[in-house]
Amino acid sequence: MPEPLILVTNDDGIYSKGIFVLQQAVARIGETVVVAPETEKSAVGHAITISDPIRIKELERENGFSGYAVAGTPADCVKLAIKVILERKPDLVVSGINRGANIGMSILYSGTVSAATEAIILGVPALAISLDAWVSPDYSYAAKVADRFVRVTLEKGIAEGTALNINVPKTPNGKAKGVRFTRQGTSNYEERFDRRVDPRQRVYFWMDGELVSSEVDPHIDDVALRDGYVSVTPLHYNLTSESALEELKEWEEFVNIET
Amino acid sequence: MPEPLILVTNDDGIYSKGIFVLQQAVARIGETVVVAPETEKSAVGHAITISDPIRIKELERENGFSGYAVAGTPADCVKLAIKVILERKPDLVVSGINRGANIGMSILYSGTVSAATEAIILGVPALAISLDAWVSPDYSYAAKVADRFVRVTLEKGIAEGTALNINVPKTPNGKAKGVRFTRQGTSNYEERFDRRVDPRQRVYFWMDGELVSSEVDPHIDDVALRDGYVSVTPLHYNLTSESALEELKEWEEFVNIET
Repeated sequence: MPEPLILVTNDDGIYSKGIFVLQQAVARIGETVVVAPETEKSAVGHAITISDPIRIKELERENGFSGYAVAGTPADCVKLAIKVILERKPDLVVSGINRGANIGMSILYSGTVSAATEAIILGVPALAISLDAWVSPDYSYAAKVADRFVRVTLEKGIAEGTALNINVPKTPNGKAKGVRFTRQGTSNYEERFDRRVDPRQRVYFWMDGELVSSEVDPHIDDVALRDGYVSVTPLHYNLTSESALEELKEWEEFVNIET
Repeated sequence: MPEPLILVTNDDGIYSKGIFVLQQAVARIGETVVVAPETEKSAVGHAITISDPIRIKELERENGFSGYAVAGTPADCVKLAIKVILERKPDLVVSGINRGANIGMSILYSGTVSAATEAIILGVPALAISLDAWVSPDYSYAAKVADRFVRVTLEKGIAEGTALNINVPKTPNGKAKGVRFTRQGTSNYEERFDRRVDPRQRVYFWMDGELVSSEVDPHIDDVALRDGYVSVTPLHYNLTSESALEELKEWEEFVNIET
């Protein structure tokens, strides 16, 4: 059996610490190719680049880390890797290790998660891995979590069209209490816009915010993290609200358009 | 009762034709404020601007169209409008009229739809309206559809956390056959990357593609459009795959991390 081919990407950029740690961990399991944004692309969500040309640079970092820096978004990277760069379809896409958790509503804004979603759209199983630490993040435990989930995923497979969104807690002794399979919760950043005036007297705003959660169910992503567990949420790419669809049936008679 | 306050936005930019037609239609129903990207932001998905400052310009077009041009994404526009610009919470957000359909996988890439999703995250009901025409789009029938759905939504309300993704077909006589309530399908752009070399001998790529669908169910978004119906899909913001969550239970014993 050939070695599994693993595509490594992220949204913090190809020069970030998190992607290097991830590639090093995953390189012990299979052949890795890194295709990631040349610069940080946090919070770009599922953006793709259709109005600008996209450039690719071949790149080598130390210790066998080689790949391609893309002047584009994480979703661009996955598309380009699968359609242009790689000689065969990868067996798995891993995205991360992100600096900062991707839970609740943040999932929608996250480039890290969107790279994984792009992979499953293209028929490749995918893991997104994030560490709930912003200041001086230590990725070593998250790398062990990545190692374990990559091995189990390659061995057991995931349901088609499913990506796993894995978040690793920051805990005092650097270890989690265990793993919880969870649902996406409603935790969100309560935004503040910081209004400033530039030297030319023009107004501008910085978006800032604070994570707010009202969740208590231990099987919701942010609660699991807070409790010191690795949170694993299976995600798909279908946004249809089945319950609302049922309710809309009674609209039928009101929405005929006279022309 | 005060006039309803309706926030109008889009991703084609505040100077586009589609948003002007939409504002003119909606202004007959309530007070409108337009907050939209200063330049085209197609395919930016749910991107938000957290690493750059955001600027806002007050703006007036003809015929009572007034609002704010934002140097940011559609999701930024909705956040800024609700948190900074508007004096009270709007009763509804309408996003569009988009040039080109937003169906199937395109929903994930769409700035138009993401503006509506952002609205429901912030607790405001929302409609995204797109026209399935790219060359010389005629927005007049889509404006009638918008009028009808805005009125019905304000009167009947939508389930909390639900946005309606409305797509209007391009039909020979300019009218649809009716309305179908639908699910997000799997139609997708089969991407090609067009490789070129610039005058300095550097390689670049253009992303291009062709819509491919294998759907046949008349209650899937792209099929309804193809059949000449207005497609209305209720969307929420939760990406959890319940079926995959069930299957993951058997992983419990494999994913304990030894440390």
